[in-house]
Amino acid sequence: AGDAEAGKAKAAICAACHGANGIAAIPGYPNLAGQNEQYIVSALKAYKNGERTGAQAMVMKPQAAMLSDADMENLAAYFAQMK
Amino acid sequence: AGDAEAGKAKAAICAACHGANGIAAIPGYPNLAGQNEQYIVSALKAYKNGERTGAQAMVMKPQAAMLSDADMENLAAYFAQMK
Repeated sequence: AGDAEAGKAKAAICAACHGANGIAAIPGYPNLAGQNEQYIVSALKAYKNGERTGAQAMVMKPQAAMLSDADMENLAAYFAQMK
Repeated sequence: AGDAEAGKAKAAICAACHGANGIAAIPGYPNLAGQNEQYIVSALKAYKNGERTGAQAMVMKPQAAMLSDADMENLAAYFAQMK
């Protein structure tokens, strides 16, 4: 499992769309607060690997491309533990 | 916006993986309770349109393929209003 504190340190850019509290400020963007940790990791890997395409993937693919596997696990742990 | 009651009537198959209460019983599957309504619609359309591929899309593409746009809006309304 990831390290939520390490995830928090990487999460500032996520907050721009997904909210500092994990509740998306932008309609059509997913809330991440309390989301399943493994699902967040698999979604990030899918964006990075090109398994998700289309309009939202155009935003997320370059973000995910900057993340290591450990970064993804840490970010997932951070958002998963939010209430 | 969709009709949550109509969505509920279509949601039994969703509950098998995403939980009757919108909290996934299976690790790695996303919780849907309280998720952004427009995001749920866009995710379902992305699965139907082949914009998501990979292991989880193998499960979701055939599910989404059975749903009309109205079905998607109704299911999204149903899960979005769950607490």
